[in-house]
Parts: sequence; structure tokens; C-alpha cells
Amino acid sequence: MDSSESGAHSPPLQREKTNATYTYENLKGWRRWRLLRPGRGMYHDVRRRLPYYISDITDAFTYRTVASTIRIYFVNLLPAIAYTLDMSRRTGYFFGINETLLSSALAAIVFSLFSAQPLTIVGVTGLISLFNFTIYDIIYLYDISIYPQFMAWTGIWAAIFHWLVAVFNACDYMRYVTDFSSEAFGMYVGIIYIIKGVEELVAEFEDTPGNAAGFLACLIAILYFASVYALEKLGSSTLWRAGFRGILADYAYVFCTLFWVGFSHIPGHISEVGLARVPVSTAFYPTQPRNWVLDFWNLDTRWVFVAMPFGFLLMLLFYYDHVRPNVSSITAQARQYPVKKPGGFHWDFFLLGCTTFVAGILGLPMPNGLVPQAPVHTDSLTVYKTTLEIIPTSEGEATEIRRPIVQATAVIEQRVTHLLMGLALVGTMTGPLLAVLHTMPRAVFAGVFFIVGWGSVESNGILQKLLFLQGEERFIQRDELMLRVRRRKIALYIGLQIFGVTACVAISHTIAAIGFPILIILLIPLRILLVPRWFTLKELEIMDDFTATNKMVLASLGGQPGLPEHSKAEDWGLERRQSETRHGVPRQRLGSLHR
Amino acid sequence: MDSSESGAHSPPLQREKTNATYTYENLKGWRRWRLLRPGRGMYHDVRRRLPYYISDITDAFTYRTVASTIRIYFVNLLPAIAYTLDMSRRTGYFFGINETLLSSALAAIVFSLFSAQPLTIVGVTGLISLFNFTIYDIIYLYDISIYPQFMAWTGIWAAIFHWLVAVFNACDYMRYVTDFSSEAFGMYVGIIYIIKGVEELVAEFEDTPGNAAGFLACLIAILYFASVYALEKLGSSTLWRAGFRGILADYAYVFCTLFWVGFSHIPGHISEVGLARVPVSTAFYPTQPRNWVLDFWNLDTRWVFVAMPFGFLLMLLFYYDHVRPNVSSITAQARQYPVKKPGGFHWDFFLLGCTTFVAGILGLPMPNGLVPQAPVHTDSLTVYKTTLEIIPTSEGEATEIRRPIVQATAVIEQRVTHLLMGLALVGTMTGPLLAVLHTMPRAVFAGVFFIVGWGSVESNGILQKLLFLQGEERFIQRDELMLRVRRRKIALYIGLQIFGVTACVAISHTIAAIGFPILIILLIPLRILLVPRWFTLKELEIMDDFTATNKMVLASLGGQPGLPEHSKAEDWGLERRQSETRHGVPRQRLGSLHR
Repeated sequence: MDSSESGAHSPPLQREKTNATYTYENLKGWRRWRLLRPGRGMYHDVRRRLPYYISDITDAFTYRTVASTIRIYFVNLLPAIAYTLDMSRRTGYFFGINETLLSSALAAIVFSLFSAQPLTIVGVTGLISLFNFTIYDIIYLYDISIYPQFMAWTGIWAAIFHWLVAVFNACDYMRYVTDFSSEAFGMYVGIIYIIKGVEELVAEFEDTPGNAAGFLACLIAILYFASVYALEKLGSSTLWRAGFRGILADYAYVFCTLFWVGFSHIPGHISEVGLARVPVSTAFYPTQPRNWVLDFWNLDTRWVFVAMPFGFLLMLLFYYDHVRPNVSSITAQARQYPVKKPGGFHWDFFLLGCTTFVAGILGLPMPNGLVPQAPVHTDSLTVYKTTLEIIPTSEGEATEIRRPIVQATAVIEQRVTHLLMGLALVGTMTGPLLAVLHTMPRAVFAGVFFIVGWGSVESNGILQKLLFLQGEERFIQRDELMLRVRRRKIALYIGLQIFGVTACVAISHTIAAIGFPILIILLIPLRILLVPRWFTLKELEIMDDFTATNKMVLASLGGQPGLPEHSKAEDWGLERRQSETRHGVPRQRLGSLHR
Repeated sequence: MDSSESGAHSPPLQREKTNATYTYENLKGWRRWRLLRPGRGMYHDVRRRLPYYISDITDAFTYRTVASTIRIYFVNLLPAIAYTLDMSRRTGYFFGINETLLSSALAAIVFSLFSAQPLTIVGVTGLISLFNFTIYDIIYLYDISIYPQFMAWTGIWAAIFHWLVAVFNACDYMRYVTDFSSEAFGMYVGIIYIIKGVEELVAEFEDTPGNAAGFLACLIAILYFASVYALEKLGSSTLWRAGFRGILADYAYVFCTLFWVGFSHIPGHISEVGLARVPVSTAFYPTQPRNWVLDFWNLDTRWVFVAMPFGFLLMLLFYYDHVRPNVSSITAQARQYPVKKPGGFHWDFFLLGCTTFVAGILGLPMPNGLVPQAPVHTDSLTVYKTTLEIIPTSEGEATEIRRPIVQATAVIEQRVTHLLMGLALVGTMTGPLLAVLHTMPRAVFAGVFFIVGWGSVESNGILQKLLFLQGEERFIQRDELMLRVRRRKIALYIGLQIFGVTACVAISHTIAAIGFPILIILLIPLRILLVPRWFTLKELEIMDDFTATNKMVLASLGGQPGLPEHSKAEDWGLERRQSETRHGVPRQRLGSLHR
């Protein structure tokens, strides 16, 4: 990918200048200290990004904008509803569809208009669902009536911590995130989602009399999963023309959701079962009988301060999940995508504080960086080209082997799709469209959990390395870099990751689930401080990689990161680079994190 | 495959002599006419094959014999029960599990002891089920009480026609069968089986009150299909060692059947549904209150003669399905397998007449050549070796590409596995094992239909050519032979096949289903007389192939076949040969016919 070419409407000269501006290298005295220079990151983010604002609108006049808007609307809405079904049931129905839609629409409109990285989609995730109902379980032990006010204060505190982090340039430290922890987090999220899917199916058995609804729900969930998966696989095959394949891949969710929702209404054996459907309430009103603005001033001072650590944990989660390069924002603008417009993490984290604040006092689930919807958004705006690689052979097979290589040639970087999606979400909040949502069976959302979760597991580096270890060695290409790492070193490396994943999954099923952001964050110092003792530098360079490598992205994070080993960033991620050179970049399916 | 090497215990010299003996080439006068030399084929079959009888027993002392016996027992029993569920319901419960088991055991013991081709498994197929219930539907229009006697006479007439065909050397004409009709037949069988699976699931909705049983049955059938499919795919991957993969492939049916039968008994939501299970009756007694020997002498003479054309149609079906090289017997000893012992089609067809006769007067479903169980039997006795092919490249990828190639190095040709399977079937007829069968839910058998049917469709040459036409052309290897055939010629070729398949499937759902053997047989003259007018010889040589190509097999059929085009057999099947050279021979999974 040649990043020296500039996009059609972007001013390349100015970019080069601002890129160089935000750094702490070659500075002396107090100027070296991030903490002492409040607002510097945010200031540079705005200054660097603002010149591109006009082009963010003018660049949008292409067909991809249409396809992208439709795709990202479904890909944002479906999982959000899925998480809400779970969260709603487990928080005494405090959070419902209306809250989720308002939260998603709010975040979409704010971030599409004001963010520095408009490709990043922010919305309701499964982790905020986990967070909210764990707080519910804790508060339940004391006095459940204060739950709304307590959540409001959690949001207020979280917003304050967000603003502090943004102002004091602490987002810079996210440069040090490597695939080691990103992969572990991706695997954790995937497993949790699959478990959530199973829980939705269990609920179907419990809520509906007789067993028919439960078994039908299992059937629909599995077939939904299989059909989306099959369409996406077909989309990445070499059947038919590239254009038609693209349509399959773009609209797999749309087609399958329409089909299986329709299926669930077929009169006779299927419709008489009475599947549970998405519960909706009056349009534009909160699910519970309350005002939109919570009376957060009616909370005992004692509880206000109890909410502070919860707010801090929430900020940690959002920090990792929003700024964390690979999985949400940066992936959305990173690595395999040839993005041209610079990032702006400090500013966006500040904005996230604002939406957290508003969501807190309105009693909405707080929106944060969507995994993996943000990468899917970028994918839907990427112009892919499938090219033919011909490998000449010395003998046999008519002296050549043909192979398709997928290359990303351009990304349509603009804000219009994001804004349109936000407006579509506002539209979905109206009565008629809520009625449409109500026709959707819960089983389809179990299927959504499965496909999102499995995508995250299947593409994960941990699983890839595990399969590598299981493969019969003589069939592995001799130039495969992993062969240069001793097998037990690879086993140790993924063993550490699996240990982290297991700990997170286990804790998520206890009341201590609230602490899971700490476990995730702890993987970073583990990687930086302990892991280098057990592996040689060469081994780590092959297996691990800095998650943020794109120059445009690093511009906002204070430049290239350096590890204690003092090697250059270009030396890292050898295995990934080799794979991309050989097989091309993978398309980002919903669920697949990278690779 | 080098057929000049001889098996360890076989007498090579004598074989060479007998090979040359049975031919009609270079003969003059009345000696050229097959019809005038009754019994010549059978005599030579016995004379050619008898010297190997001792080695058929002594060759069996290897591990593969154990694996093969277990695998072929399951692979024979499960589909047989599946077909019986269907046949039983649609013949007023005249045919039941006991009839099917007795028929299978009878055929297995007779053919394992006396046949010239002991690798060929003979048993109850889906087509005999179709045949029996279509006769039931026809007789139902007149006087259903004569159904047992009528079936007995159908069997008697069919037996007589079998013996005539065998004695007058008519099996020789099967040399002219090519893949054109074999593929169409395979596709037809696959589609019919999948439809049968759906019918089993529909029956579950109809027979059990409420919808729970129906949906649970769908779930089990789909998951059974998916798990067998996944295990067999893993078995042909390059994960783990070859030995472990082999176990997965060998016992996929065993593992999955045990698992899903157990699953269907899990207490709670699953067991309380009351799934339909295999219906069993008293051990060793006919399902209906009757004697084993039917009173066929109590049938009106008029009806005796009405049974004659039905017997002829049955013989036609068995002729195509037993002798038809690729799909049953010959595949079981043909092409990709390095078999060393000669075939004997005339003798075996005579034997088949005997079992048809016995099955007829005992009121059993008549056994015939099992598709695809016979090839699976050979597969289970084949010693495979996965070798590494290294393709040197002129540049890139460290100057080589590694690829696994599966080669069949030997086939354990013996009669012991076949006999042991027959004895196991006799054991299954006893009370305790019938009770075990009764624990199996019908849903599992719907899954068996799906996996057998899909295997037959997926591996079919028609589908392969269709996919070739759909593929984006630039990614096809330049030396791919199909590229030398114009695309619309390929389309015409598979169009003709698809027309034949569609006609057969359509007729199978009417009372005229009884005539489907005629449609299938008609494909052969279509291929020989009409097809050469529309295609060039070169095109046919690439797309089509003689189904019988192994020298050992042709020995029994009067030598190499010749088409009107007068080309040599070695010029045919170019596409298949190229594929085998490049990718190795495919393992024969249950359901996959070839390729």
C-alpha cells in the first residue's frame, strides 16, 4: 500500500506539516511531559483534521456510499437490539429498545458531525450490556430503587474521567497496544457473544410454554448463522463476477434477516408456535414510566461517591475499546486500509465523554466504539480489487499457478454514511418502524450473536496459531515465518493469551464481572514487562505486532512507539505482512477482527 | 496406478491367461454371437476368480479389516433403516425393520461367500423402497390384499430375467456406460434422498402432537448432517497426523450416531418431546402376522402375468445399479483403486437373481448393489498414503509450493469383512439389539438421508461442471482441460444431464415412478447415438469417460469397449485423469460417488 498518493480532495502538503507537529520527541524540560501540556493533543487533532471537513462531504458522492449506508445500518442495529434483549431482561427492563435506539442515534449524529474519525462507529455494545446488568446485580443487593440515579452518576463520573484523559493526552499510551492483547480481547468478546446467543435460546425455552418455541428458535438461529456465513463465504470465492460477489458480501445480513424474519411468520406449524419477538413500547418514550432526564440529584451523597470507581472502570473499558487501535477506531482506519486522512484520538475521546454524560443523565446505555461494526464500516467504504497473481513454476501445471489476491485500492473517507445511518436510527424510533422491529423474532438475534461471535473467534490470531501447531508439518510452506519460532514458544505465547481469555470469561459470569476492564488492561503491562523475558526479540517480531502502524493514525498518538527492546516498528508483524503479501488483505466481515 | 504388480497371495500367471480367454474379438461365425453361447461369461467368471478364493481369506489378517468391518456395518445398516422407515409407512407397514435386516443379512452372507466380487456390498436401497411403494400405490387402486403375493411374483419374474441376462452374457453391454449417465443417475439418487429426508421430518410433524417433536427433529437432522460432514472434512484436512485423521474419517458415522442418539435422550426439554423412534417388532418374526414364506401360489393367474413387466423393470434397475460400473460394483473395484483380483459380473448377476428370488418369496425388500456403500467398503479397505508434492516455482514463496497428494497404494481384497458384517446383521436381528435400534430417533435417519444425498450431489460431475462455468475465468489454471471446450458446449452437456435428472425426479413423484429404470437406461443410447452428433470427439474425450477402465474389471466384460467414434479408451476421461494427477485420488466418503 502506497501511502504517498493522496486522496482526490485532500490537501497533502498541509497534512505533512501537521503530522510532524504533535510529538514529544526532541523536546526538552517540562515540555516533554504530556501531563503538563493539557489540551495539546486535542488542539492538534482539530487543527490537523479540520481542513478535511469539506472533502468529508464532497467525497461522498459515489455508489459505495449507498451500499455502505444500508449495510452499516443493519450491522449497527441488529447487534444493538441483540444486546438490548439480554440487557433488558437482566436490568428489570430498565433499558429497552427505545433507550438503545436513542443512544445509537445520539452517538451516530454526534460522531458523524463532530468527530475527527467519522469512519468510527460508536454505539451500544455487548460489553456495556454486561457492565449495566452487573451493576444491577450489585445494586440489587442493597436497594434496587436507586439503580437509575446510580447509573446516571456512573455516567457522570465516567464522563469526567474521559475528559481528564483527553485533556492530559493520555490516549498516546495506546500506541503500545500490540496484537497480543488485541487478540485476547477479540477472543474474549467472541466467546461472550456466543454464550449470549445460547442464553437467548435458553430464555426462549423458559418464557414460552411447551418446547416447540425453544426448538424452533434453535433452528432459526442455526440456519440464520449458516446462511449469513455461506453468503459471506460465497462473496469471497471466485465464483461469478467480482461485482455480484460484492453484493452478496455487502448485503448478506440484509438478505438473511429479511428471509428468516419472514420465515418465522409462515402460517401453520411455524407461526402457531408463538416465538418471542422484540418487545417494543410507545415511540419516543422511555421504556419505564419516567422522564427522559433522570433525577440524578435525588441520590444519597454516599452513593454518588460509590459510583465513582464504577465510572472509572467504565472509562477504562471505553479507553481500551475506543482507543484500542486494532479493534475499533484504529482498525477502522488502520493497517490494511489505505486511509489518507489523519486520525484524532484525543478529540474523539473527549467527544465520547460528552455522549457518555448525556447517555448517563438520560438513562441510556452508554455508547462506545463498536467492535466489529467500525471495521465493517470502513470495509463497506473500501474499494477492493481482486487481482490475479501468476506464480511461474519450474515444472508441471503448464508452468504457472494462478491465484486471486484481494487488494484494497481506496477508502471513501467521508461523514455522510455515518450521518445517514444516524438519521435512519432516528427514523427507526418512530411508531411504524418500531412495529416492524416487533415482527422480528428473538431467535434471529441469537443467530446474530453466533455470527458476530464466531467471526471474532474464527479470524483470531490465537486460533490461527493453534491451527498452525496442529497442522502436519510437512505440508507447511518452507518459507512460513512461524517455522522459525520453536513450537513450544508458540504454545507458550498462545497459552498466555488463552489464560487471559479464560480469566475474563470466568469473571464475566460472577458479580466481579465489573472488574473485567482491569483484566484486559493488565494484558498490556504483561506484554511489555514480562513477555520479553520469555521470548527472543525475533520470535516476538514474528508473532506480535503493534496494532497501530498506519502513519496517518500514529500522527494523533505522538509518533512511533518504542518497546524496551528498541527495535523499529517496521521489524514487527512479519507473519502478518507475509500473509498479506501472499494472500492479499482479507475482507472485513462482521465479526472477523483482522487477518 | 501400475497394475502389473500383483498382490501378495495372488497367482499372476494364471490371471493373465484367463484374462485373454473371455472375449469375442477375433472370433468367426456363430461364435461371435453372445446369445448363442449361453453361460460362457459365467463359466469364465468362476474359472478366473476361483484361484483367488484362498487368498480372499488369508489376505484379511490386517488392522484395516477391523476398521472396515465396523465402518461398513454402520454405513450399511443406517441407510437401510432410513429407507425402511419410508418404505414401511408407504406400504401399509408390510415391510418393516425385520424384513430389511433379514434381506441385508441374506445378501451379505450369500455375496461374501459366493460372489466373484466380494468387495461389492448388496443390500436394501432407497430405490427398491421407491419401487415397492409405487407398486403398493398401483395395487391399492385394485385390491390391496394381493400385495404380498404380487410382490412375490414380481420377485420371481425378476429373478428369471436376472438368470436369463446372466446366462446370455448380456452384462457385457455395461462396458458402454459412460460418466454421462452415471453422473445423471448419481445426481438423481442424491436429490431423491434429500427429498426423503425432508419427508421423514414432515412425518415427525404429522405423527406427534404439538410442534416440538417436529422442530427438534429438524434440529437433530441438521446437526447430525453438519457433524458428520465436519468430521469427514477434518479427516481430509492436513491437521494432526495421518493416522488420527484416518480414524475421524473411518468412524465419523459411528461417533455422530452414538452422540446424537444419546442427545435425543437427554432428560428434560429434549426427552419430554417424545420423538418418534425406530419401530421394531418381535425378533425373527415378520412385521405383519404372516409366515415368512408368502403364499404366492394363491394369486390369480391374471395377476401373475401382470407382475411380469414389473419384474422386468426391477431387473432393468438392478442391471443398471448392480452392473453399472461406476456407481456400485465396478466403482467398488475400479478406477482410482489399485485392485488386483479380477471381476465377475455374469456370475454375480446370476447370484443377484437368486437373492431376488428368495427375497421375493419371503416378502423382503429385494437387495441390490448399494450406492454408495459399496465404494465406501472398498475405501475402508484401501491403504492411503498422503504424500507431499513440491512444485518448484521460478520466483516467490521460497521457490516452492507444497501440496498434499493422496494416493491409494493398495486395497485389501478379501471376503472376511463382508461376511463379518453379514453376521453382525444377523446379530442385530436378535431381541436385545432390536431394543437398541428402538432407542434411535427417526430424526437421525433424516440426517443420514441428508448426508448420503448431499455427498452424492456435492461430488457429482454435473455440479462440478456447473461450478466451473460459474467461476471467474481468469482464476482458472491455464492448462485446465475444460478450457478447451467451448462454454456453451459444456452448458449443453450438463443441460442434457440435468434434463434427464429432472425427468427422473419428476416421474418419481407420480404413480409412473415404476418406469424410472427405463428413463435411466435410455440415457445410454442417448449418449451413444445422439450426443456424438452435437459434440466433437475431443470435447467428449475431455468431459466424458468410460466408467469401467480397470483392466481387471474389463476382463469380465469381454474386453475394451469401442464407441462409434473408434477411439481408444486411453483417450477418454482426460479431465478426470488430470485432476487425479494434480490433486490425488479423493477418499470415498459415504455419498460421494467419485471425484
